[in-house]
Amino acid sequence: MDAIDTTVALPMDEAEVAVREALSAQGFGVLTEIDVAATLRQRLGVDRQPLEILGACNPSLAHRALELDPSVSLVLPCNVVLEPASNGTRVAIADPRSLMPGPALAELAAEAVARLTAAIDALSGI
Amino acid sequence: MDAIDTTVALPMDEAEVAVREALSAQGFGVLTEIDVAATLRQRLGVDRQPLEILGACNPSLAHRALELDPSVSLVLPCNVVLEPASNGTRVAIADPRSLMPGPALAELAAEAVARLTAAIDALSGI
Repeated sequence: MDAIDTTVALPMDEAEVAVREALSAQGFGVLTEIDVAATLRQRLGVDRQPLEILGACNPSLAHRALELDPSVSLVLPCNVVLEPASNGTRVAIADPRSLMPGPALAELAAEAVARLTAAIDALSGI
Repeated sequence: MDAIDTTVALPMDEAEVAVREALSAQGFGVLTEIDVAATLRQRLGVDRQPLEILGACNPSLAHRALELDPSVSLVLPCNVVLEPASNGTRVAIADPRSLMPGPALAELAAEAVARLTAAIDALSGI
Protein backbone atom coordinates (compact mmCIF):
# COMPACT_ATOMS: atom_id res chain seq x y z
CA MET A 1 0.00 0.00 0.00
CA ASP A 2 1.44 3.35 -1.02
CA ALA A 3 1.25 6.29 1.36
CA ILE A 4 1.33 10.06 1.26
CA ASP A 5 3.41 10.99 4.29
CA THR A 6 5.37 13.53 6.24
CA THR A 7 6.89 14.04 9.67
CA VAL A 8 5.47 16.72 11.96
CA ALA A 9 7.76 18.26 14.58
CA LEU A 10 5.21 17.75 17.36
CA PRO A 11 4.51 15.00 19.91
CA MET A 12 1.77 12.62 18.86
CA ASP A 13 -1.13 14.18 20.80
CA GLU A 14 -0.42 17.65 19.40
CA ALA A 15 0.23 16.21 15.95
CA GLU A 16 -3.21 14.57 16.03
CA VAL A 17 -4.88 17.95 16.63
CA ALA A 18 -2.91 19.44 13.73
CA VAL A 19 -3.76 16.47 11.48
CA ARG A 20 -7.48 16.81 12.20
CA GLU A 21 -7.32 20.54 11.38
CA ALA A 22 -5.38 19.95 8.15
CA LEU A 23 -7.83 17.24 7.06
CA SER A 24 -10.83 19.41 7.94
CA ALA A 25 -9.44 22.27 5.82
CA GLN A 26 -9.58 19.83 2.87
CA GLY A 27 -13.13 18.66 3.62
CA PHE A 28 -12.19 15.43 5.39
CA GLY A 29 -13.83 14.54 8.70
CA VAL A 30 -12.49 11.86 11.03
CA LEU A 31 -15.15 9.14 11.39
CA THR A 32 -13.17 6.55 13.35
CA GLU A 33 -10.17 6.41 15.66
CA ILE A 34 -8.23 3.35 16.77
CA ASP A 35 -5.53 3.40 19.42
CA VAL A 36 -3.77 0.29 18.13
CA ALA A 37 -1.20 0.14 20.94
CA ALA A 38 -3.92 0.31 23.62
CA THR A 39 -6.03 -2.29 21.80
CA LEU A 40 -3.14 -4.76 21.53
CA ARG A 41 -2.11 -4.14 25.15
CA GLN A 42 -5.66 -4.79 26.32
CA ARG A 43 -6.34 -7.83 24.14
CA LEU A 44 -2.91 -9.49 24.00
CA GLY A 45 -0.93 -7.92 26.85
CA VAL A 46 1.79 -6.87 24.40
CA ASP A 47 3.70 -3.60 24.64
CA ARG A 48 4.46 -1.77 21.42
CA GLN A 49 5.18 1.81 20.44
CA PRO A 50 2.19 4.13 20.04
CA LEU A 51 0.19 3.71 16.84
CA GLU A 52 -3.04 5.47 16.03
CA ILE A 53 -5.27 5.06 13.00
CA LEU A 54 -7.77 7.77 12.10
CA GLY A 55 -10.45 6.99 9.51
CA ALA A 56 -10.82 10.10 7.31
CA CYS A 57 -13.67 10.69 4.89
CA ASN A 58 -14.62 13.53 2.55
CA PRO A 59 -18.39 13.03 2.36
CA SER A 60 -18.75 14.54 -1.11
CA LEU A 61 -15.95 12.42 -2.60
CA ALA A 62 -17.20 9.31 -0.79
CA HIS A 63 -20.75 9.82 -2.05
CA ARG A 64 -19.61 10.28 -5.65
CA ALA A 65 -17.31 7.26 -5.41
CA LEU A 66 -20.08 5.04 -4.00
CA GLU A 67 -22.41 6.14 -6.81
CA LEU A 68 -19.79 5.13 -9.39
CA ASP A 69 -18.79 1.87 -7.70
CA PRO A 70 -20.61 0.55 -4.61
CA SER A 71 -17.63 -1.71 -3.78
CA VAL A 72 -15.75 1.42 -2.66
CA SER A 73 -17.40 0.70 0.71
CA LEU A 74 -14.78 -2.03 1.14
CA VAL A 75 -12.01 0.60 1.40
CA LEU A 76 -13.69 3.50 3.20
CA PRO A 77 -12.66 5.49 5.19
CA CYS A 78 -9.10 6.47 4.25
CA ASN A 79 -6.55 5.52 6.94
CA VAL A 80 -4.41 8.27 8.43
CA VAL A 81 -1.70 6.67 10.56
CA LEU A 82 0.22 8.45 13.33
CA GLU A 83 3.31 7.02 15.01
CA PRO A 84 6.34 8.45 16.80
CA ALA A 85 9.38 9.39 14.73
CA SER A 86 12.82 10.45 15.94
CA ASN A 87 12.02 14.11 15.30
CA GLY A 88 8.30 14.20 16.03
CA THR A 89 5.38 12.24 14.61
CA ARG A 90 5.14 10.46 11.29
CA VAL A 91 1.81 10.95 9.51
CA ALA A 92 1.03 8.54 6.66
CA ILE A 93 -2.17 8.56 4.61
CA ALA A 94 -3.19 5.55 2.51
CA ASP A 95 -2.95 6.57 -1.15
CA PRO A 96 -6.48 6.69 -2.65
CA ARG A 97 -5.00 5.58 -6.00
CA SER A 98 -3.99 2.28 -4.37
CA LEU A 99 -7.35 1.95 -2.61
CA MET A 100 -9.40 2.76 -5.72
CA PRO A 101 -7.47 1.55 -8.77
CA GLY A 102 -9.01 1.46 -12.24
CA PRO A 103 -10.19 4.05 -14.74
CA ALA A 104 -13.75 4.50 -13.41
CA LEU A 105 -12.53 6.03 -10.16
CA ALA A 106 -9.30 7.61 -11.44
CA GLU A 107 -10.65 11.18 -11.48
CA LEU A 108 -12.06 10.93 -7.95
CA ALA A 109 -8.89 9.27 -6.67
CA ALA A 110 -6.84 12.10 -8.18
CA GLU A 111 -9.02 14.71 -6.48
CA ALA A 112 -8.69 12.88 -3.16
CA VAL A 113 -4.90 12.68 -3.62
CA ALA A 114 -4.70 16.42 -4.37
CA ARG A 115 -6.65 17.28 -1.20
CA LEU A 116 -4.73 14.84 1.01
CA THR A 117 -1.41 16.04 -0.41
CA ALA A 118 -2.45 19.62 0.42
CA ALA A 119 -3.19 18.47 3.99
CA ILE A 120 0.22 16.78 4.21
CA ASP A 121 1.91 19.88 2.77
CA ALA A 122 0.22 22.06 5.40
CA LEU A 123 1.50 19.70 8.11
CA SER A 124 5.00 19.67 6.67
CA GLY A 125 5.18 23.41 7.23
CA ILE A 126 4.63 23.10 10.99
CA MET B 1 -11.17 -4.82 -4.15
CA ASP B 2 -12.21 -8.44 -3.84
CA ALA B 3 -14.71 -9.45 -1.19
CA ILE B 4 -15.77 -12.56 0.71
CA ASP B 5 -19.53 -12.26 0.84
CA THR B 6 -22.90 -13.80 1.51
CA THR B 7 -26.52 -12.82 1.99
CA VAL B 8 -28.15 -13.32 5.39
CA ALA B 9 -31.93 -13.81 5.52
CA LEU B 10 -32.34 -11.18 8.25
CA PRO B 11 -33.05 -7.45 8.32
CA MET B 12 -29.93 -5.31 8.71
CA ASP B 13 -30.09 -4.70 12.46
CA GLU B 14 -30.46 -8.40 13.22
CA ALA B 15 -27.87 -9.30 10.60
CA GLU B 16 -25.40 -6.98 12.34
CA VAL B 17 -25.81 -8.85 15.62
CA ALA B 18 -25.25 -12.16 13.80
CA VAL B 19 -22.21 -10.75 11.97
CA ARG B 20 -20.62 -9.57 15.21
CA GLU B 21 -21.16 -13.03 16.75
CA ALA B 22 -19.75 -14.84 13.71
CA LEU B 23 -16.69 -12.55 13.67
CA SER B 24 -16.18 -12.96 17.41
CA ALA B 25 -16.22 -16.76 17.07
CA GLN B 26 -13.24 -16.35 14.72
CA GLY B 27 -11.34 -14.00 17.05
CA PHE B 28 -12.32 -10.76 15.33
CA GLY B 29 -13.55 -7.82 17.37
CA VAL B 30 -15.35 -4.83 15.88
CA LEU B 31 -13.24 -1.71 16.56
CA THR B 32 -15.16 0.83 14.47
CA GLU B 33 -18.63 1.32 13.07
CA ILE B 34 -19.74 3.80 10.41
CA ASP B 35 -23.36 4.40 9.48
CA VAL B 36 -22.56 5.68 5.99
CA ALA B 37 -26.15 6.57 5.09
CA ALA B 38 -26.57 8.64 8.28
CA THR B 39 -23.20 10.35 7.75
CA LEU B 40 -24.03 11.34 4.17
CA ARG B 41 -27.52 12.48 5.16
CA GLN B 42 -26.07 14.64 7.93
CA ARG B 43 -23.18 16.11 5.94
CA LEU B 44 -24.66 16.36 2.45
CA GLY B 45 -28.42 16.05 2.93
CA VAL B 46 -28.54 13.14 0.51
CA ASP B 47 -30.78 10.12 0.91
CA ARG B 48 -29.34 6.74 0.03
CA GLN B 49 -30.07 3.16 0.99
CA PRO B 50 -28.66 1.94 4.32
CA LEU B 51 -24.94 1.14 4.33
CA GLU B 52 -22.91 0.23 7.36
CA ILE B 53 -19.17 -0.42 7.62
CA LEU B 54 -17.79 -2.35 10.59
CA GLY B 55 -14.02 -2.35 11.15
CA ALA B 56 -13.04 -5.87 12.23
CA CYS B 57 -9.70 -6.83 13.72
CA ASN B 58 -8.20 -10.06 15.00
CA PRO B 59 -5.64 -8.68 17.50
CA SER B 60 -3.28 -11.63 17.21
CA LEU B 61 -3.22 -11.54 13.39
CA ALA B 62 -2.94 -7.74 13.38
CA HIS B 63 -0.02 -7.80 15.81
CA ARG B 64 1.86 -10.42 13.79
CA ALA B 65 1.18 -8.54 10.54
CA LEU B 66 2.41 -5.22 11.99
CA GLU B 67 5.59 -6.94 13.21
CA LEU B 68 6.24 -8.25 9.71
CA ASP B 69 5.31 -5.03 7.89
CA PRO B 70 4.44 -1.81 9.77
CA SER B 71 2.71 -0.43 6.66
CA VAL B 72 -0.15 -2.87 7.36
CA SER B 73 -1.49 -0.03 9.55
CA LEU B 74 -2.60 1.63 6.29
CA VAL B 75 -5.19 -1.13 5.73
CA LEU B 76 -6.37 -2.00 9.26
CA PRO B 77 -9.04 -2.81 10.32
CA CYS B 78 -10.75 -5.11 7.81
CA ASN B 79 -14.01 -3.66 6.44
CA VAL B 80 -17.19 -5.66 6.89
CA VAL B 81 -19.95 -4.03 4.84
CA LEU B 82 -23.67 -4.52 5.46
CA GLU B 83 -26.37 -3.37 3.05
CA PRO B 84 -29.94 -4.40 2.24
CA ALA B 85 -30.47 -7.14 -0.35
CA SER B 86 -33.74 -8.31 -1.89
CA ASN B 87 -33.82 -11.34 0.40
CA GLY B 88 -32.18 -9.95 3.53
CA THR B 89 -28.81 -8.33 4.12
CA ARG B 90 -25.66 -8.61 2.04
CA VAL B 91 -22.50 -9.00 4.08
CA ALA B 92 -19.21 -8.37 2.26
CA ILE B 93 -15.76 -8.55 3.85
CA ALA B 94 -12.71 -6.99 2.19
CA ASP B 95 -10.41 -9.83 1.11
CA PRO B 96 -7.22 -9.71 3.22
CA ARG B 97 -5.27 -11.03 0.20
CA SER B 98 -6.15 -7.83 -1.68
CA LEU B 99 -5.36 -5.66 1.36
CA MET B 100 -2.03 -7.38 2.09
CA PRO B 101 -0.56 -8.60 -1.18
CA GLY B 102 2.97 -9.91 -1.44
CA PRO B 103 4.82 -12.99 -0.17
CA ALA B 104 5.82 -11.62 3.26
CA LEU B 105 2.22 -11.46 4.46
CA ALA B 106 0.80 -14.32 2.38
CA GLU B 107 0.61 -16.79 5.26
CA LEU B 108 -1.12 -14.30 7.58
CA ALA B 109 -3.49 -13.21 4.82
CA ALA B 110 -4.39 -16.86 4.19
CA GLU B 111 -5.12 -17.41 7.90
CA ALA B 112 -7.29 -14.27 7.97
CA VAL B 113 -9.15 -15.45 4.85
CA ALA B 114 -9.77 -18.88 6.40
CA ARG B 115 -11.22 -17.33 9.56
CA LEU B 116 -13.33 -14.74 7.70
CA THR B 117 -14.59 -17.41 5.29
CA ALA B 118 -15.61 -19.51 8.31
CA ALA B 119 -17.51 -16.48 9.65
CA ILE B 120 -19.24 -16.01 6.29
CA ASP B 121 -20.04 -19.73 6.11
CA ALA B 122 -21.62 -19.57 9.58
CA LEU B 123 -23.76 -16.61 8.42
CA SER B 124 -24.76 -18.37 5.20
CA GLY B 125 -26.37 -21.09 7.30
CA ILE B 126 -28.77 -18.70 9.03
